Amino acid sequence: MFKFEDDSFMLHTDLYQINMGQTYLEQGLADRTAVFDLYFRNMPFGNGYAVFAGLERIIDYLQKFRFTDSDIEYLRTLGYEADFLNYLKDLRFTGKVRAVQEGELVFANMPLVQVEAPIIEAQLIETALLNIVNFQTLIATKASRIRQIVPNDTLMEFGTRRAHEFDAALWGARAAIIGGFDGTSNVRAAKLFGIPASGTHAHAMVQAYGDDYEAFKAYADTHEDCVFLVDTFDTLNSGVPNAIKVAKEYGDRINFIGIRLDSGDIAYLSKEARKMLDEAGFPDAKIVVSNDLDEVTIVSLLSQGAKVDSWGIGTKLITAYDQPALGAVYKLVAVENEAGEMENRIKISGNPEKVTTPGKKDVYRIINKYTGMSEGEYITHADEEVNEEQPLLMFHPVHTMKRKLIRSFEKVELLEDIFIDGRLVYESEEITDIKQRLENNLSILWEEYKRFLNPEAYPVDLSTELWQIKQNLIEDVSNKTLE
Amino acid sequence: MFKFEDDSFMLHTDLYQINMGQTYLEQGLADRTAVFDLYFRNMPFGNGYAVFAGLERIIDYLQKFRFTDSDIEYLRTLGYEADFLNYLKDLRFTGKVRAVQEGELVFANMPLVQVEAPIIEAQLIETALLNIVNFQTLIATKASRIRQIVPNDTLMEFGTRRAHEFDAALWGARAAIIGGFDGTSNVRAAKLFGIPASGTHAHAMVQAYGDDYEAFKAYADTHEDCVFLVDTFDTLNSGVPNAIKVAKEYGDRINFIGIRLDSGDIAYLSKEARKMLDEAGFPDAKIVVSNDLDEVTIVSLLSQGAKVDSWGIGTKLITAYDQPALGAVYKLVAVENEAGEMENRIKISGNPEKVTTPGKKDVYRIINKYTGMSEGEYITHADEEVNEEQPLLMFHPVHTMKRKLIRSFEKVELLEDIFIDGRLVYESEEITDIKQRLENNLSILWEEYKRFLNPEAYPVDLSTELWQIKQNLIEDVSNKTLE
Repeated sequence: MFKFEDDSFMLHTDLYQINMGQTYLEQGLADRTAVFDLYFRNMPFGNGYAVFAGLERIIDYLQKFRFTDSDIEYLRTLGYEADFLNYLKDLRFTGKVRAVQEGELVFANMPLVQVEAPIIEAQLIETALLNIVNFQTLIATKASRIRQIVPNDTLMEFGTRRAHEFDAALWGARAAIIGGFDGTSNVRAAKLFGIPASGTHAHAMVQAYGDDYEAFKAYADTHEDCVFLVDTFDTLNSGVPNAIKVAKEYGDRINFIGIRLDSGDIAYLSKEARKMLDEAGFPDAKIVVSNDLDEVTIVSLLSQGAKVDSWGIGTKLITAYDQPALGAVYKLVAVENEAGEMENRIKISGNPEKVTTPGKKDVYRIINKYTGMSEGEYITHADEEVNEEQPLLMFHPVHTMKRKLIRSFEKVELLEDIFIDGRLVYESEEITDIKQRLENNLSILWEEYKRFLNPEAYPVDLSTELWQIKQNLIEDVSNKTLE
Repeated sequence: MFKFEDDSFMLHTDLYQINMGQTYLEQGLADRTAVFDLYFRNMPFGNGYAVFAGLERIIDYLQKFRFTDSDIEYLRTLGYEADFLNYLKDLRFTGKVRAVQEGELVFANMPLVQVEAPIIEAQLIETALLNIVNFQTLIATKASRIRQIVPNDTLMEFGTRRAHEFDAALWGARAAIIGGFDGTSNVRAAKLFGIPASGTHAHAMVQAYGDDYEAFKAYADTHEDCVFLVDTFDTLNSGVPNAIKVAKEYGDRINFIGIRLDSGDIAYLSKEARKMLDEAGFPDAKIVVSNDLDEVTIVSLLSQGAKVDSWGIGTKLITAYDQPALGAVYKLVAVENEAGEMENRIKISGNPEKVTTPGKKDVYRIINKYTGMSEGEYITHADEEVNEEQPLLMFHPVHTMKRKLIRSFEKVELLEDIFIDGRLVYESEEITDIKQRLENNLSILWEEYKRFLNPEAYPVDLSTELWQIKQNLIEDVSNKTLE
C-alpha cells in the first residue's frame, strides 16, 4: 500500500488541477499572477459566527510544496507531457498567502485565505486548502457553540473513535481546543499540540474484573487521580455506591475527582448521584457525563436540572453531526492579463448567492469607538484606504437599504501575511494564544450574534467602491450573454 | 508542530486505554488474554446491508505497533510509573486478529473484527480500530447505496475538498471504490491504491480566459480527452454551444468525451443539453453532472428524465452527510481468569440493544442450497460445530418466534485470520478483487434487502447454544444486582 518511500501531499489534489496546469503551461499562462479568495457562503449550524482554524496545517502543507520523484512518475503513467512533468519537478511555491489567524471570528462571504500566486501554483493548492479549512473551521465552530452553553464547565473532546479517520481525530481535537474545549482524550493530539489529555477507565475494565467494586479498587491502587465510571451493572444501586465506598476506603491515598455517567437517563441519574455524593461527604466530587451529547442535548439536560460539572463530547462534535460540511469554496477574483495588468474577474451563476465578488480585497473589522463592540466586517478593494477620521457608511451588499453610518470607529485588518514570495513570514502561535484571541473577539461581539438559536446576521459589507466594481462586472457579463 | 521525528500512531488512542494499561500491568492482569468484538448496532442510512472496509489500514497500523522514544517521553510527562513505561517501550503486538474481508457484506450486531490478545494490547488498539472501521465502512456503504441506484452509469468520487481532513479524503476515496465507484478526483488516492483518477477542468480556467470558447480551445489544444464544463456564463446559450463548436472545429484532433454540468437545474439542463449534443451530431457525447448529489437526488433526477451518463459525487458521499457516524463499538466478550481459563463476559445496559453477546464467536453466512441465496448470518460460540448435514434452526435473538428451518445449506465462514501471534498471515488484496467480492455477495442477497428505502431486515441470528449462554449471563448479572 504505502509502497512509495518518497510519497508527498502534492498529489493530494483534484486531477483537474493538474490538467489545468498542463493547459496553463503549454499556453504560456502558468506564470500569470492570479488572486483567489477562500470563503464559505452560509453560516454553519445556523450559528451567528464561525471560528477560523486550519492555518497551522496550511503552513505545514505549503512548506512541503514539492513534487517527489514518485509523484512525477505516477503522473507520467497518466500520460502527461514530459515538458510539463519537468516543469512540475522544479516547481516551488512562490506566491503570497494572507489569512485570518486561528481563533478569529469569521463570517459568510468574507475571504478567510487569500492566495496571490502564479495561477498554476494557486490552483494546485486549492483542494488541500479547502480540505483543511472546511474541516477544522467546522469543528472549531461547533466546539464554540457548545462552549457558549456552558461557559464555566469543563469540556472534553472524546470523539476519536468516531472521527473520519486519523487526521480528523488529530486536527479535530486541536480545533475543539481552539473553539473553547479544555482537553482531549486523544493522546497523540495532546502530545503534538501541547494540550491537556483527559480520561480514566472504560467499561471493559469493570468487565475484566467482573465487579465494579473490585475494578474501582484496582484503579485506585494504581492511580492517584480517580474518576470512576459508574454506569456498570446498575448505576444507582451498584456503580455510585461502590465508587463512594472506594473513595471512603482509600481516603487521602487517592484524589477522588468524581464519577462518570455514560448511559441511561443522564438528567435523572446525575441528580440522584449528586445527592448520594453530597450525603456521603463528597460535595466537591465532580460528575462527568458523556453519551452522544451536543449543544442541544446539553441545553435540554440543564433545563431538567441535571447536575453536571464536566462534559465529554464525542461523535456529535468530531463529525459535526448536524452539518458535516462547511462548504467553503476557492474562487478566482483577479488575474494578470497579457499586458501584465491585474484584471478583476467575476463568476456569474444562475444562483445569485453564488455570484463571486471580484478583485483583490482587504478585510477590516469595524469597532465602534463609543461601545467598543464590533459593528461588522468591511471589505474593500485592496487599492482603497479606509479613513478612520471620517464617518463610514456600511450597507448590506444585496439588501442595500439596510445601512448604517458609523461616526467613530477603529479598523482592524484581519488578513495577516503568512507567505511572501513563497517564504513563511508568520510565526506560529501557542494554542493558548489562539484561544485567547477567540475569547477577546467574542467579548466584543453583541450577544444577539452569539445565541445558539436564530442569531442576528452579523454584517459583512462591501465598500461602496468594491460594490460598484461588482455591479459593473455583473452588468458586463450579463450584456455579453444577451448579445 | 511536527517537532517529533519519531512520532508514531501508538498514542492515537484514548488516554483511558493507557490508564487501564497501567492498572492491568501493576495488578498482574496485563498478559491475561481477552477477546473483543468490534461491531455496530444499527444499519447506517437505514440501509439493508453495509460494506466492510478498513482492513488494509488496520494491517498497516498493527504492523507498526511500537511506542517510540518520544511517545514514551511524552507519557512520562503525564506522570506514569517508570516500570509501566519500560514495559510499554518493549511492548509488541502479539495477539490474534480475525476480520471479515473488505468488500464483504456486514450487518448490525455481527462481529466485524475479533481481537484475541493480552488485554493490555487489545485495549491499546481499540480506539484506532474503531476510528478506521467506523469511517471506511460508512463510506463504502454510502457508495454502494449510490451504486445500486445507477448500476450502469459511471460514478466518480469528487469529495476531497469537503472531506474531514486529508486521511478521510484518501481512505474515503478508496472506500468509495470498494463500494462500487469507478474513479476518484484525488490523485494521491489514485497513486497509492492503483485506482482510476478522474477530472478535467474547473470554472477558474474559464474565468482565467474570460471566455468559455477560448478556454475550451485552450484545453483542447493541450489535452486529447476533453470534457468541457459548460455552466459558464449561461449554460444553454454559451457553455453548451461553445463546447459543441470546439468539438466540431477540432474534430478528430481531440477525443470529445462530453460535457459537465455543475450547477443550475440539472434535470432541465441535462435534457436540453442532450438534445443539443444529439442534433449537433454527438450522440455518443457523455453528460457528466455534479453538485451536491446523493442517492436521493439521483433518484429524483432520474424520475424527471434527466439525461446523465456519469455522476460526480462529492460532499454527500465523503462526509456521509445524512449520517456521518457509524457508531461501531468494541466490547470485551471473554477474558482469562486467574486459573488461566477463558470466561465469557457480558455488559448489561439499561438499554436492551446495548447488552453485549458474550463469548468468542464464529460467524457464518448460511447459503440456501436450493436458491443459492443467503438466508442470514449465523453466529456461534467458537467451540461449536455447524453441521451442514442437518437442518439448521435460525431464529431472531430477541423476537424468538421469528424463526425458520433451513433444510439444505452451505456455511461460509466470514472471519478470516489476519494476525496470529502478532504476525501478519493475511495477504492484502487488489482493489479489483475486493470490488468483485462485493458484487458476488450482492448477487446472492435478495432484492428485498437491497432497496434503498425501507429494506427488510436481514437475519443476524445466534446459535441456540450462544443464545443460551447469553440468557444465562443476563440472568446471573440481574440476580446479582437484586441481591
